[in-house]
This record gives sequence, C-alpha cells and structure tokens, in this order.
Amino acid sequence: MACVDDPARNLAKQLALFGRAVKRGARVLCTQELFASPYFCQVEDHRFFDLAEPIPGPSTDAFAAFARRHAVVVIASLFERRARGLYHNTAAVIDADGSMLGIYRKMHIPDDPLYYEKFYFTPGDTGFRAWRTRYATIGVLVCWDQWFPEGARLTALQGAEILFYPTAIGWHPGEKAKYGEVQHDSWEVIQRGHAVANGCFVCVPNRVGHEIVRTADGTPVSPDGIEFWGQSFVAAPNGRVVERAAPDREQVLVVECDLAKVETARTHWPFLRDRRIDAYGDLTRRFVDER
Amino acid sequence: MACVDDPARNLAKQLALFGRAVKRGARVLCTQELFASPYFCQVEDHRFFDLAEPIPGPSTDAFAAFARRHAVVVIASLFERRARGLYHNTAAVIDADGSMLGIYRKMHIPDDPLYYEKFYFTPGDTGFRAWRTRYATIGVLVCWDQWFPEGARLTALQGAEILFYPTAIGWHPGEKAKYGEVQHDSWEVIQRGHAVANGCFVCVPNRVGHEIVRTADGTPVSPDGIEFWGQSFVAAPNGRVVERAAPDREQVLVVECDLAKVETARTHWPFLRDRRIDAYGDLTRRFVDER
Repeated sequence: MACVDDPARNLAKQLALFGRAVKRGARVLCTQELFASPYFCQVEDHRFFDLAEPIPGPSTDAFAAFARRHAVVVIASLFERRARGLYHNTAAVIDADGSMLGIYRKMHIPDDPLYYEKFYFTPGDTGFRAWRTRYATIGVLVCWDQWFPEGARLTALQGAEILFYPTAIGWHPGEKAKYGEVQHDSWEVIQRGHAVANGCFVCVPNRVGHEIVRTADGTPVSPDGIEFWGQSFVAAPNGRVVERAAPDREQVLVVECDLAKVETARTHWPFLRDRRIDAYGDLTRRFVDER
Repeated sequence: MACVDDPARNLAKQLALFGRAVKRGARVLCTQELFASPYFCQVEDHRFFDLAEPIPGPSTDAFAAFARRHAVVVIASLFERRARGLYHNTAAVIDADGSMLGIYRKMHIPDDPLYYEKFYFTPGDTGFRAWRTRYATIGVLVCWDQWFPEGARLTALQGAEILFYPTAIGWHPGEKAKYGEVQHDSWEVIQRGHAVANGCFVCVPNRVGHEIVRTADGTPVSPDGIEFWGQSFVAAPNGRVVERAAPDREQVLVVECDLAKVETARTHWPFLRDRRIDAYGDLTRRFVDER
C-alpha cells in the first residue's frame, strides 16, 4: 500500500485492505514494513521517534481485535518503542484467536543513502524465530534481512513453512533508468533463492508509492525521495513466483500456499538432509582472514 | 562438453576446448564436474572405481603443463583416489605457473535417483576454501554444493571474488516436459542468489549431452538416462546472467569478470558489513527443535 502522513489513516486503510483479503479467503495476513507511516528513515530527524509505539499497544490492539473477529493470523510491522531511547523495527505475530504469539526484532539494520535505519533502530535481540500459528508455522524477517541467507536458514530450521518479509524498498528516481531493473531483479532473485534453499514459501509485501520526506520546516530531505517499487510477491518452494503485484499501485494479493509442497520440495531436493553442520562454524566469523 | 567412455579422449577434448578458450583470452579455466568420464553415478557399480586417479596424477600433470605453457589458471574436477577404498569428488586448482595451489573435496554429496554419489564419494574433509591465483582470488565448490548458501558464504568469507561450480546436472527425460523448466530455473536462481548475497562472480560450467550408463553386460541402468542440461553460465555480483550457454551443444564461454565490480557491489549493497555473527550460532545445528 501507499502511505500518508497520518498514522490513523494508514491503520484504517490497512484494516480495510485486510478486510478485502479476508473476503477473498486469506488466513494469514501481513503488512508491509512500517505500514503506519511514511518511510521516515529517509532522514535522521529526532521528530520521527514520536511515531513509535509500544508493543503491545494501539496497533497490536487493533490487529488483535481484527484477528479474533475474522479468525485470521496477522503479522504487523511496527516502529517499536521499547524504552526511553530504545527503539526497534519489530514485527508482531498475532494468532487467529487474537493472542500475541510473539515479536521479531529486525536483526540486520541497513544504513545507506535515504535508508538511515541505524539512526532509529537498535539491531534486534530476539534472534530468528518461527511460530506455530493456527494455519501454518511461519517465520518473519524484515526487509534488509532478506539479503542474508543466514536469516532465512535459521528461521526455516525452526520449522517455518512460510517466510514473511515485510518490506519498504524502492528506487532512487535518479537511478531508476540505469539501475532500476537490475536492482529489483537482484531483490527478487535472492529471496526466490531462499525459497529454493529452504524448500519453503516466501511472501514479500512491499510498500508502493513515491514518498519525499520533509524536515520540520517543509524542506524536502532529498530532491526526489524514494519511489517504492511495490511488486509484492509470493514464491513457491521451487523458487517460482506464484503471484506478483504491480510496481505502481496498491494491491491485495491472496495466494494459496499448499503446505504439503514443503515436504515434497524437501524430499525431492533434500538439502536439509545433507547440510555439513560440522563445517559451518566459521559462519559466525566476520571474515576468515587467516587459518 | 559432452563425454564419451574413453577418459583419454575426454582429456584430449578438454585440452582442445581449453586451447580455444585461451585463444579467446581466457585466463582462469574450469572444467565441468568429472569431465574425464561419463557421469557413472547413475548406478552403484564397483567397476567405476577404476576411473579414479590420484591427485597429483595423470590429469593434473596434463593440466599443470597446459597451465604453465599458456600462463593460465586451471580448475579441474576429478574423481580422486585418495587411498584404497577412499574416494572423493575433488577439484584441483593449478596456478598460472603450473604449480598446484591445492584441492577442494566436495563437501555436500547427493544421493537421488540416478545421482548415487554417496556410494562413490566420501564427503570432503577440506572444508571450504579460496586461493589467491595469479589473476583472481577464487573459490571452487562442486555441483550439489551449489544448493547450500553456507558453502558460498564460507568461500566468499575467505576472499573469493569468483566462485566456480563445476557441475553435472540434467533432466530425467521422462520428467523434462513437466518439471524441466522449473528445475533448471531453481538451479540458476539459487546460484544467482549466491552472487548477490556475496557480491561476487559465480561461474558454472555444466555437462551437456544425453548419457545412459550401462552395466558390464551392456544393460542400460535406467530406461532413459540423464539429459544434461548444459546452460553453463556466469553471473555478475548483481546476480545478472552475463552469458549463458545453450542446453544442447558443447560451447566455450569466455567472460570478462571485472574484479572491481566486487568492491562496488559490496559497498553499494553492504551485506558483509551487517552480518549478525553474534546470532548465527545455530547454523551448525541440524534443526532447531527446541529452545
């Protein structure tokens, strides 16, 4: 979806979109990353800490009520205020009875031009997690996590049949003509690769719309902001994109994930059988400079 | 390339193909997996242990002479006889002066219908490795390794700018119409994902041709054998396929890999900066059944 400045309106729209999904039979619903606001990380501005909220808090209360009413699982990506001066980029997982199953705090935090997340978010301390919900065992990772095969693997190793990646990624408009297609393709390919490597579904709801964040006096923080590239998608355990949204408009994707395909994928391509766990110890090193 | 039964003819053809590559400017050359013979692992037959050879041995001698003469690096995938009753699927890496830099013994060994490698090959004990050759720092992994992000990462963490995957993969002809396209796509996608995740080049020389292995009395071990799908390719650090060979004929690919692109990829998509090595410990577990 596309966001406006007012969090209340974004929440109302999100619930309306979820309502459309439920009418079409959805049972596990996931927001994009930080659905409640524009992507404020385009600038380092202390004002934006006011957007954060506790978990549980107003957003999770609203989603819990929705989950209970419709008997659906909800994954909500939120700006978490954990304590004074301690903030995270957090996903809350609510089961189909409205109970909070737990939270995942984004483990990998980016810092790149217009994506100044290290200013706002302390790297997660939850580790990678999966939850047995009423309808599937799911794991949640958030945006930048999607570039790290380690996160996908560790979540799958806890039993996740579906990996969700609430996301807010887009193009610098000035780069789009030259690099846009390749950037989008890299992003989709690596996540399709997670589906293949782990024999699981991968669901990626991404933000859409063109956002230019402004300072308190109304000055744009960059000449042309970010054009979020939408194209939310679901990949099957064989890596195929089952469905992909448009790059330029809001959309509700409802995709059937036959969980039996996870077993089929993993016995026909038995990678979990053959992992060389005796030889993976150096994955906890920053770099293997010398032996 | 396509293989015949006679190892001497395969070696002669391989050297001729390498000669064509050198004429076109190649500086690092890599064979497909087990180039010296048909893909005998289609059956569990003790006869085929006779195809193995020591390293160093006749094949590495020939490649070392070639490497020295042409001042090129050679990566050769061989059936290694290490000791009586101890065999590996091994890649030898020879520098441009003809010296042996080292070997990599395939760490992940498959066992699937017509790919009965666990019968022949003891899983490698070299660990994952990279070598500083005259022209680039390279890592070598072999075929089934290509499905494991851990292997790619561990090799990249040792400085590899290019990952080579000598390969022998193909279709069961009876499955090709229904599953062939998806199988090939999964294979290419996961390796393009390794290029993206690690910001390095990935080069994959694959076998081509239709092989039906026979028992000593001439009986085919399967009705239709394996149709190796060729389509050797090189992926750039952004995951794009720079060049891809045909599925149905022998081909020499010579692809320029601008190593400066590794630095560009890794600073523009700084995944190595942000890995959460404090949280990756469970990657050495088989499954995370409980906390």
